[in-house]
Amino acid sequence: MTEDILSIDTVALDEGKNALKIIDQTKLPGKVEILYLTRQEDIYDAIYHLKVRGAPAIGVAAAIGVYLAALEIDEVSYDAFYSRFKKAKDYLAGARPTAVNLFWALDRMEKVVLDHSGESPEKLKKLLHDEAVKIRDEDIQVCKSIGEYGLELLNDGDGILTHCNAGQLGTTRYGTALAAIHLGRQRGMNFKVFCDETRPLLQGARLTAFEMVCAGVDTTLICDNMAGMVMKNGWVKACFVGSDRVAANGDAANKIGTSGLAILAKHYNIPFYVCAPTSTIDMSIKHGDEIVIEERMPEEVTEMWYNERMATAGVKVYNPAFDITNHELVTAFITEYGIARPLYSESFRKIFEKKTSPAGARP
Amino acid sequence: MTEDILSIDTVALDEGKNALKIIDQTKLPGKVEILYLTRQEDIYDAIYHLKVRGAPAIGVAAAIGVYLAALEIDEVSYDAFYSRFKKAKDYLAGARPTAVNLFWALDRMEKVVLDHSGESPEKLKKLLHDEAVKIRDEDIQVCKSIGEYGLELLNDGDGILTHCNAGQLGTTRYGTALAAIHLGRQRGMNFKVFCDETRPLLQGARLTAFEMVCAGVDTTLICDNMAGMVMKNGWVKACFVGSDRVAANGDAANKIGTSGLAILAKHYNIPFYVCAPTSTIDMSIKHGDEIVIEERMPEEVTEMWYNERMATAGVKVYNPAFDITNHELVTAFITEYGIARPLYSESFRKIFEKKTSPAGARP
Repeated sequence: MTEDILSIDTVALDEGKNALKIIDQTKLPGKVEILYLTRQEDIYDAIYHLKVRGAPAIGVAAAIGVYLAALEIDEVSYDAFYSRFKKAKDYLAGARPTAVNLFWALDRMEKVVLDHSGESPEKLKKLLHDEAVKIRDEDIQVCKSIGEYGLELLNDGDGILTHCNAGQLGTTRYGTALAAIHLGRQRGMNFKVFCDETRPLLQGARLTAFEMVCAGVDTTLICDNMAGMVMKNGWVKACFVGSDRVAANGDAANKIGTSGLAILAKHYNIPFYVCAPTSTIDMSIKHGDEIVIEERMPEEVTEMWYNERMATAGVKVYNPAFDITNHELVTAFITEYGIARPLYSESFRKIFEKKTSPAGARP
Repeated sequence: MTEDILSIDTVALDEGKNALKIIDQTKLPGKVEILYLTRQEDIYDAIYHLKVRGAPAIGVAAAIGVYLAALEIDEVSYDAFYSRFKKAKDYLAGARPTAVNLFWALDRMEKVVLDHSGESPEKLKKLLHDEAVKIRDEDIQVCKSIGEYGLELLNDGDGILTHCNAGQLGTTRYGTALAAIHLGRQRGMNFKVFCDETRPLLQGARLTAFEMVCAGVDTTLICDNMAGMVMKNGWVKACFVGSDRVAANGDAANKIGTSGLAILAKHYNIPFYVCAPTSTIDMSIKHGDEIVIEERMPEEVTEMWYNERMATAGVKVYNPAFDITNHELVTAFITEYGIARPLYSESFRKIFEKKTSPAGARP
């Protein structure tokens, strides 16, 4: 396994097969298996079972997924088409509750239909195709831009701690938290990356370590509970993590353990950066408390990646998939429109102004 | 598997077989396998490979182990006996570097020989037998006493977070961090225990969850990175952990992740108690920096309890088995002679005064 994996988009629309093309992330790093999904049940299942994961990648997968659902609609009237489209949209929206990109992407797709009231299903399908492709293309640009801004915060040789996988495998290309590392590496910079294994599903051990080693980056795997020691040893210049949803005040939902990491970083005076495409920032919610945290099944904890039961019968399990990092613990958010520093209510407003202004160019 | 397991001492001298009797902890919770070890290589291996683990249990095992080594010595002169005894002692002392109880117990055994210079090997063997049994009996009393003091800090119904296994399975009986829970349970109290699974070797998931469920305690297993969320949810009244070595200033070595947990507890204003038999307090070292931290093999992290390799080839691994919790993060130490609060240089002195005074009774 070499850098080849990085030349494949994590999530794509296969135009020939009319299929959602993804790398099955539950099989990594042992096996690179490409899936071509056409049935809605299979696309829902792929999102639910994390074959495709990472907030941006889920958004792109859902956009392509609902486009494929639209292709199957054989109604001829607009109303009947919309009714079935809405049903397909709601179905996919139920696959996971926390990452806002899922809803954001599906809402964008629905808006295409709503904005073209009365159009023929034929035309709507074409418009939906273009929107899905646009969402994917934008994801690539957004990640690249986040990488450029992230690089401004780093120096060659820096040690960087990351959690879970907010890399290329969680987006279409580049990643969010890992985008700066990929771009820096392409330009001959050498970072030292420490990745938390990220229990229970080991996205750090399985995905980030794989992605970083493929990219030729100096990569050290640690268990989640070793992060404090790595910080105390002075090996970490900055933490870079992704996010699944950010509230208007800067409270950020991300993989379980992120919040604890931010508390450790504060204790050791290490900057803590959250990489967040603006699609992840949900200005409709004021505080992190309003974000629904997905709880997943106990077997993820007790059966160690489905091999063998490691905990006694009779024990209860608490298995939240995400936590909320308080905005006070975040040094800055890195978005595709620049770096937002506290007060976030202010800086997010400026970021969105830049986004909606006609001249709102990204680097 | 029921409470029966709690009626078996974790580590004992089998007088009939002249063997070290232990429960093989690498097989738990799936299988309760009792080992009878006589060969020094097997005893070393049992300590090194964590078949017996936990600082107090290691101390007792080493005392019994070196007694069994003495039994095998066929020299007739004191000097020749001592020379071979010393060799056996040094061999066992090399099994693990961090827990001070290993050295403390072996030093106590050596002192028996040194204090009886010129005695016959026959007599020395008898004295060593009695000292080993005494170390084991004291361990039981010490743990019970720590449990009594710990109970003073708890109320019925409290939620308690613990890390690794500082329970009966890490001592002869009762445990240190879990002693108060066992005693309270026997008296009809109901605690809610949250146990960190404790990567990489899962002592929390495999041992603490098992021990607590066997004792009829309401037990919830979490991944290490979920501890912050459990605290934030308000479910934790106190953290109780064990320790492998405590410096004179109160810096405490314990299972990797303990220090991070203490930082989280401070952030959430939750008391953080370290349970430490005085045998664990090493007044000869001033600061935690002087404690040697054992690093273990990468496969513990990458191969998930030896099932399947979960991380890509080419990734480096950092796998420290312990970390040092700064004394400022410790609310109090619970010893068999009472509760020591800051300033620890002062309170430890008083604890040791109590220990060495003729009236230094434990509860």
